[in-house]
Amino acid sequence: MSQTPAPSDAPRPGETLLEKPLPAAAELVFIGHIETPFTTRALCPRQGDPENGPDCTVHLLPELASALREIERFDHIELLYWLHHARRDLLTQSPKSPGATRGTFSLRSPVRPNPIGTAIVRLRGRTETTLSVRGLDCLNGTPLLDIKPSRCDYAPLAKPKPGAGT
Amino acid sequence: MSQTPAPSDAPRPGETLLEKPLPAAAELVFIGHIETPFTTRALCPRQGDPENGPDCTVHLLPELASALREIERFDHIELLYWLHHARRDLLTQSPKSPGATRGTFSLRSPVRPNPIGTAIVRLRGRTETTLSVRGLDCLNGTPLLDIKPSRCDYAPLAKPKPGAGT
Repeated sequence: MSQTPAPSDAPRPGETLLEKPLPAAAELVFIGHIETPFTTRALCPRQGDPENGPDCTVHLLPELASALREIERFDHIELLYWLHHARRDLLTQSPKSPGATRGTFSLRSPVRPNPIGTAIVRLRGRTETTLSVRGLDCLNGTPLLDIKPSRCDYAPLAKPKPGAGT
Repeated sequence: MSQTPAPSDAPRPGETLLEKPLPAAAELVFIGHIETPFTTRALCPRQGDPENGPDCTVHLLPELASALREIERFDHIELLYWLHHARRDLLTQSPKSPGATRGTFSLRSPVRPNPIGTAIVRLRGRTETTLSVRGLDCLNGTPLLDIKPSRCDYAPLAKPKPGAGT
């Protein structure tokens, strides 16, 4: 609605910023990357669709291949990834029109002190070091942080899917 | 069942390790900490219970207080935290008896290349910089990384809870 839209990473009117950066406290490693059809931020959907979203590919570093063992037990997995283009200092944000700001922690915006995205995706296939999934909303090339069974699928671990091994 | 249980952070028989550490790729900041009744790893439940679990307190750094604005709109929030006692180099793990190993990414164990825990918790109250929640399973003193509305509560944002403001 604004006549002179700000560049995508500049604060909008009414947004507030952290005055000085918080100290670094822990180090992340990138365990792979994610291939999606979303090549610009404007193309990323607001939220992924695990049923009807496009197929995306999770690429894991070859040295971590054995850590995927038995992942095929699960229909849904949780992915954590690093939103590498997001600024980290906004305290309040204006998701749409200027002025209507909300706290960063009451939004799922990529912009946050630790720009980690989480998604529950449907696992459709795997090779030794890749997973084919649906339900992502992140940019092509996003660095991968973690893969976990989804909470819901994990709870009844004693009862694996038929044919999924023991 | 083992007669000589290994120390809790030593590899168990059959587990496999990453040969050399992955390079650090991004820095996390700690935005606060979590107070739970679980003072040892043995006391932590396998998974938190958002309905009947004990009340826990999320403490946010005072300089981030304004980033909580409107969090009370949401019944359920997602918390991300840093599992600061977990080793990071196990590729396969033996969750129970020795020998029955599984890939790290097919477990929700704290031990993983990026030891980030995620939980969906029920929000029961807040002050300026604290949240009272149920559904955590982490150690007392765990560093906090992020607070997000839960995916499920976030989707129908256009329809806030009655009385929650506009």
